[in-house]
Amino acid sequence: MSNVLRVDMSRLRVAVEAAPDDWRLLGGRALTSHIIATEVDPRAHPLSRDAKLVFAPGLLGGTAVTTSGRTSFGGKSPLMGGLKESNAGGVLGHKLSKLGIKAVIVEGTPEDGELRVLYIAPDGGWRFERAGALAGLGNYATAERLLAGASGKTRAVVSIGPAGEWRMAAASIAVNDPEGRPTRHAARGGLGALMGAKGLKAIVVDDGGVRNVEAADPAAFREAMLAFSRVVRDDPRTHNLSRYGTAGVIKFVNRDDVQSLPVKNHRLGTSPGAAMLGGQHIAALGEERGGRMLPCMAGCIIKCAVLYNDARGAQVTTALEFETVALLGSNLQVDDIDAVARMDRACDDLGLDTIEMGNAFGVAMEAGVLPWGDWQGVLQLFDEIRAGTPIGRTLGGGTAHVARTFGIDRVPVVKGQGLPAWEPRTLKAMGITYATSPQGADHTAGLVTARGVRPETLLKASRREQLIMAAVDSVGLCQFSNPVEEDMARFVSAVHGTAWTRDDVLTLGRRVLLEERAFNQAAGFARDADSLPEFLRTEPLHTSEGDQVFDIDDALIDAFWDFE
Amino acid sequence: MSNVLRVDMSRLRVAVEAAPDDWRLLGGRALTSHIIATEVDPRAHPLSRDAKLVFAPGLLGGTAVTTSGRTSFGGKSPLMGGLKESNAGGVLGHKLSKLGIKAVIVEGTPEDGELRVLYIAPDGGWRFERAGALAGLGNYATAERLLAGASGKTRAVVSIGPAGEWRMAAASIAVNDPEGRPTRHAARGGLGALMGAKGLKAIVVDDGGVRNVEAADPAAFREAMLAFSRVVRDDPRTHNLSRYGTAGVIKFVNRDDVQSLPVKNHRLGTSPGAAMLGGQHIAALGEERGGRMLPCMAGCIIKCAVLYNDARGAQVTTALEFETVALLGSNLQVDDIDAVARMDRACDDLGLDTIEMGNAFGVAMEAGVLPWGDWQGVLQLFDEIRAGTPIGRTLGGGTAHVARTFGIDRVPVVKGQGLPAWEPRTLKAMGITYATSPQGADHTAGLVTARGVRPETLLKASRREQLIMAAVDSVGLCQFSNPVEEDMARFVSAVHGTAWTRDDVLTLGRRVLLEERAFNQAAGFARDADSLPEFLRTEPLHTSEGDQVFDIDDALIDAFWDFE
Repeated sequence: MSNVLRVDMSRLRVAVEAAPDDWRLLGGRALTSHIIATEVDPRAHPLSRDAKLVFAPGLLGGTAVTTSGRTSFGGKSPLMGGLKESNAGGVLGHKLSKLGIKAVIVEGTPEDGELRVLYIAPDGGWRFERAGALAGLGNYATAERLLAGASGKTRAVVSIGPAGEWRMAAASIAVNDPEGRPTRHAARGGLGALMGAKGLKAIVVDDGGVRNVEAADPAAFREAMLAFSRVVRDDPRTHNLSRYGTAGVIKFVNRDDVQSLPVKNHRLGTSPGAAMLGGQHIAALGEERGGRMLPCMAGCIIKCAVLYNDARGAQVTTALEFETVALLGSNLQVDDIDAVARMDRACDDLGLDTIEMGNAFGVAMEAGVLPWGDWQGVLQLFDEIRAGTPIGRTLGGGTAHVARTFGIDRVPVVKGQGLPAWEPRTLKAMGITYATSPQGADHTAGLVTARGVRPETLLKASRREQLIMAAVDSVGLCQFSNPVEEDMARFVSAVHGTAWTRDDVLTLGRRVLLEERAFNQAAGFARDADSLPEFLRTEPLHTSEGDQVFDIDDALIDAFWDFE
Repeated sequence: MSNVLRVDMSRLRVAVEAAPDDWRLLGGRALTSHIIATEVDPRAHPLSRDAKLVFAPGLLGGTAVTTSGRTSFGGKSPLMGGLKESNAGGVLGHKLSKLGIKAVIVEGTPEDGELRVLYIAPDGGWRFERAGALAGLGNYATAERLLAGASGKTRAVVSIGPAGEWRMAAASIAVNDPEGRPTRHAARGGLGALMGAKGLKAIVVDDGGVRNVEAADPAAFREAMLAFSRVVRDDPRTHNLSRYGTAGVIKFVNRDDVQSLPVKNHRLGTSPGAAMLGGQHIAALGEERGGRMLPCMAGCIIKCAVLYNDARGAQVTTALEFETVALLGSNLQVDDIDAVARMDRACDDLGLDTIEMGNAFGVAMEAGVLPWGDWQGVLQLFDEIRAGTPIGRTLGGGTAHVARTFGIDRVPVVKGQGLPAWEPRTLKAMGITYATSPQGADHTAGLVTARGVRPETLLKASRREQLIMAAVDSVGLCQFSNPVEEDMARFVSAVHGTAWTRDDVLTLGRRVLLEERAFNQAAGFARDADSLPEFLRTEPLHTSEGDQVFDIDDALIDAFWDFE
């Protein structure tokens, strides 16, 4: 059983269609990007009736493989104008796969402009309800009401907050974690605005306790799974993530030679206050305050999500990620981790990308809208976003939008999307990834921290990592499980009854990148879209190894696409 | 004598350089576009230190040829991101040529962030003064103070209003008319923001009563001039312009078969109230109220500028153009010409492009920011623009910016620039011009009103007109003098002592288009930049000749660039 739910918001109907044969070995990002590339006019406005929002579990969704339950969301990006894939953890992916749903395609826009909730039942039944009192609510209240006492494990709630309802270009889509919190976000690229334009406040998926997907070759599957779990468990990176979460990396990025911590709208690469933002400090606070590490989905053995409590022991957030801490913290000259946690919660509740908002506030501070370090001012401005006031709309429009509003020329975006924390001036392969990825400035598209090697080597490393990550996002694994090609080939073969090799995995990755790039070109991205903001080439970081700018030649960057 | 003034705003110095030999037969748009293309990194941010603002008179500047005193302004567009040329009438162009100034190139940004005025004296002397109390003033008060009793004929004031100071992407650059009013604007593409980013409030040019440029072949020049003046004078189009101004065309565009009057954010193409906005009505009011027709520069025999008084006889504006009346009038469902005149004056004073603002307010009304027809609300919002409040900044950011702010998907822009009044659904050649012109949605780039002919014929007509207009903008003539290639060849030959044929004129036009396009491509414009907003292809206009959408094939549009 492998179905596609086609959700027609114009006629308020859901059609259950058998998935085409040639989608069989596509999942996650490979499938969402393929559907958008083949079904959406690249020139359609991202918020128009002709736009589509797609989501799909990965090829390993519904199995017991650790971290395999991620869900890809795809569409033409309201933020960037290109083909966007943004994936999230949480409980959705496994449920879709277990219900035999290979993809959900949301089309059209409601004639009456009303906001609705779509319910999907275990038996394939569906119904729409008016959002009613949910309209305008944050993701926390929305998830709580839609869970209605059900466990976050048995029910998935996919929702947008006010930012998505306002169709803001920095709006995210939230998915709940196993404890019911709406803290796992398909954050990047403004897909929350696309969901808002479709008139969907939320989608609720119950799996009715159905069992895992059965592998075509159970013995091979079991063997692969045990081996993979062992490798993940023994990986020192796992140990760090399990203890300190993703913010544990601040110790490394804040080093004088690395300088990969954005400070003051990416002016500096280190901060004396960084230790107060680091995972080690968060873990120490957690011991005092009753914090703990959580899995974001069933079956994850890494558990890098941080349940963060305030000084009185009240829960604030479960997603205090490195990127969030860097962009909403050091980038704004805030080194109070409690303040960052509150800003993070505001983003989760409003349904906003923390990376985009950290950059947007950085530019707003550069413009003098509020002083550096003024996190109370940021919290007040989140209220303006909630209310949809002009300044709120401006900020919710994202980094480039704020820069244009205030006439600022230091604009930390690539292809219209705000820069992640990883610094292209010192970690130059990251610049190559940001420049070439069809996903714009996206660290998850291909994270390479190599330094001190030849540009050609960096290019190859970025390319290899981007191919692998495109495959990882397509099988639905979390990047923190660090699968190699052979892992993915073995799993896909065992689950789907095929005989994949590592080459097939790379072929899948290549297909994804090329299909996304072709859409982007048809949608209007030219060579310059593959370049970094001017200031990264002209304003050096003063590191212990000398002044560093991003100085990789365009010609070399263009060679990225010389795939075999 | 043929000099270039290089104005270094970082060091507050002006260098007088001899113009390179190969610039000898470049002027106006050909020269500004060439300087930007060769001196500015296409990837530089339009507001950065590396950006440049250039202005240049045409090849016939400083002569007595009627309408030959236009000035081209060029830069990387803060609105569009591509190579912009925007030209204006007024008294500047002739003065520059008479002083032997072939181009002014403004570079750098002031270290202290202060706003300044640059004075250029007849003897080539220059000085900077702090803008002081001029900062924040509108163009009217600025021009009045900087003229300081001098005649608008002997002194040219080039200035920005608050919009340019705020670096808003819809900001224009104002040039005074012979009576000293700042009503001639290089309006399109946001070059006022570029001037603001350079820290220049105004440039004052005195010509000291110096004589006209002498032609290399005075006899041939005189003969050509007399012939051309006769043709212009006898042209029925001149008669209409001289009597009714450019808004006289409303009678034609409002016809049921033509439907080229934007109504309600380009939803409709005709309006029952159109006659109240037309040139005939304006002329009739002028007779009652003491209005009159004016030349915008010395030596113009067309005199299409309308001095418009209010009901009490007080001057409101001298630039009540068709585009202004259509975009700020019918497009906003306003058919009170007094209201339009007040909005026009607000745009001139704030330094804003009326076409861009008409589109921006249309989108704002679509978003419910204010009701259709609410011109009082528009005037209040102009005050917000003046004050630089968040909603003011949003509106001043232009059409696409407002659309993104409010999540609106009917976005009337091409290459980021708001649509002029001329309607691509009925006048399909205009769609070809908007799509292909390196200047984006710009009716002056190639105005073709042919209907009922084959698409291939429309394409050829658009191409021919764009080549001619690129030449017209380079010799510095007004399009309303309707010069043909032979006119321009004869004038350039006589003035510059060369032997141009019509082919040389077309070669100049071709050079301009190709140089601008190459810059745009390097700056990030791909195929999709050459397409019209979705709604023009999907929402028909119901004309007396049937439903009309813009339905020219992309393949045909792409063939535009198959020159020869």
